[in-house]
Amino acid sequence: MSDAARVLERCAQLGEISEESGRLTRRFGTDAMREANALVAGWMREAGLTVREDEVGNLIGRHGEGRAFVLGSHLDTVPNAGRYDGPLGVLVALAAVERGRPRVPIEVVGFADEEGVRFGSAYLGSAAFAGRFDPGWLDLVDEDGIRLGDLVAGVPAGGPPPLGYLEVHIEQGPVLERLGEPLGVVTAIAGQSHAEVTFAGEAGHAGTVPMGSRRDALAGAAEWVLAVELEGPLATVGRLDVEPGARNVIPGKATMALDVRDADDGVRDAAVIALRARAAEIADRRRLDLVWEDTASIPAVDMDARLTAAFRGFPRLVSGAGHDAAMMATVAPAAMLFVRCRGGISHHPDESVEEADVAAALDALERFLRAL
Amino acid sequence: MSDAARVLERCAQLGEISEESGRLTRRFGTDAMREANALVAGWMREAGLTVREDEVGNLIGRHGEGRAFVLGSHLDTVPNAGRYDGPLGVLVALAAVERGRPRVPIEVVGFADEEGVRFGSAYLGSAAFAGRFDPGWLDLVDEDGIRLGDLVAGVPAGGPPPLGYLEVHIEQGPVLERLGEPLGVVTAIAGQSHAEVTFAGEAGHAGTVPMGSRRDALAGAAEWVLAVELEGPLATVGRLDVEPGARNVIPGKATMALDVRDADDGVRDAAVIALRARAAEIADRRRLDLVWEDTASIPAVDMDARLTAAFRGFPRLVSGAGHDAAMMATVAPAAMLFVRCRGGISHHPDESVEEADVAAALDALERFLRAL
Repeated sequence: MSDAARVLERCAQLGEISEESGRLTRRFGTDAMREANALVAGWMREAGLTVREDEVGNLIGRHGEGRAFVLGSHLDTVPNAGRYDGPLGVLVALAAVERGRPRVPIEVVGFADEEGVRFGSAYLGSAAFAGRFDPGWLDLVDEDGIRLGDLVAGVPAGGPPPLGYLEVHIEQGPVLERLGEPLGVVTAIAGQSHAEVTFAGEAGHAGTVPMGSRRDALAGAAEWVLAVELEGPLATVGRLDVEPGARNVIPGKATMALDVRDADDGVRDAAVIALRARAAEIADRRRLDLVWEDTASIPAVDMDARLTAAFRGFPRLVSGAGHDAAMMATVAPAAMLFVRCRGGISHHPDESVEEADVAAALDALERFLRAL
Repeated sequence: MSDAARVLERCAQLGEISEESGRLTRRFGTDAMREANALVAGWMREAGLTVREDEVGNLIGRHGEGRAFVLGSHLDTVPNAGRYDGPLGVLVALAAVERGRPRVPIEVVGFADEEGVRFGSAYLGSAAFAGRFDPGWLDLVDEDGIRLGDLVAGVPAGGPPPLGYLEVHIEQGPVLERLGEPLGVVTAIAGQSHAEVTFAGEAGHAGTVPMGSRRDALAGAAEWVLAVELEGPLATVGRLDVEPGARNVIPGKATMALDVRDADDGVRDAAVIALRARAAEIADRRRLDLVWEDTASIPAVDMDARLTAAFRGFPRLVSGAGHDAAMMATVAPAAMLFVRCRGGISHHPDESVEEADVAAALDALERFLRAL
């Protein structure tokens, strides 16, 4: 069996470890996560690594002594997940170290929580690993009322800063597939702006209020949805709720969630300002009330130019999704390698990667480690 | 106290009779309806009418003998209703008969169910009165599993056709208020087309799928919502549901309810055909799948020209909402008089009419009855 085939087989084995029967769901602090850590720890030991777990359940396999270069990704999943988002990066890293026996100290890390499903926390695992765990998080509670603090052994202090960080991850988008390329190198992790946007008009009887007298909140929202599509950089209205929401009632209220992403924070900020002005113009013209609530603004994170240069010749991509590399970049030079995935499908059981592409990732990682 | 003030006071008294405390809800076959009938029956007897209830609970107060001219409206309400939609017509009719002592036989009717809230039936009361009760309705069940058949005494046979039917009703729209007119005469009750319209595209990650690669169901829906607003006669998208409906997921599916109304069935049918073609064009251009389900097509009902002519000089309106007059028009010449209501508000506790407007309606009805 090829190294790549073994990585895929291990992803399949890990994919069987779930909180639920019949589908893959593995959230932070669950028995499924403990079982997944135990399985990967066994593979790490077989590969000759020294294995430990930190206070929050990050799994760390070490090769050599002293400040290490870190290779990793996460072992938790979203509900009803695919088997590659996260685990592929951990297992490719492990296989590359097994193959290459690098000269520098290496830590292969499986982060305990990247998806943030259980506590709504972003990058919990890598934040802990980087010594940036916020003690306030200990008081977060999940939907069953369980405190995060009761699931962890303490607040991790964080070790000395790593020499660098490299993460292999499925692209979760269709770009590499369309380019016909197995791998891409990430130049930046896009910043994100989120907003809650509400148009309020006047509900009324669909049979009795003349068209010219209406203050239809959905019609205003529709106009703005098209503006977002046309004028945004990467901009999405993913949620739209209409009230009262009955066939024979003119919509009195339409509430939307806006998501804007760009590698350039200036471009992103300008886009949000422009879309807000557009919403105000639509509301004004249509005699609607506009409520705009900015709910998040997360800066873009550049990947390290020197590390990224090691993958010269690969297509360069911006990651629209967040990754542990964004957190790790705050304490070390960080880089990411994307692996093509079928149809760009992710966060879904249909997630799929080709063995040949995994082999290419392994080769690239092996070359990278040899050059360190 | 003026006759109009007494009508308003009676509306207020009736408005206290509800299934729920704190808000007015009076559905077919409930204790609240029985109590309302008993109250109105008392007023009918005071006015010298002979009172009976038919098999489904329609309340009928008779003046004179032989084929009668019918004046009426309904005594049931929607949930959280106002106090005028329905009862005003019954009580204005009663007051006009009391005042005028008409030469022709008159029946004042309070229909038992026009809103159809409990069983989803349209015009249950007036259909029964008109001898058009569908025996299949006996098997309808409400949300508590109660059979309609267990709430009625039998299938009404219907009597001889009435000489005619006249219904006074609040406008439930803003037209008379904007015209500065207390009353209007209805020329037709608009026909209605209902459709369930779905655009299906491809859900995807809001951060990883480039704008040009998207098949965003909501963007297609938005384009169509604007087409409905621009190209329809009286056309409404009152409901729009997005799936999966998360901020960071490109909408894969958008389902809408369309409501089109017009007094001219040809205009209405042509509008539906045009909007369907528009939806197909949008879906095609955006690589979306379109599912179009026609869920109802209800023909328009013209009011009787001779009866309507009795209200010469009044503004002429099309009723976009359905009324018992639409059912009664199938067995007798029918006409409707609209009373201005504040802000066009209806199906809401804020429903409001002016005493002076009710007085005008009473006078118009008295004149009408005298001329019969």
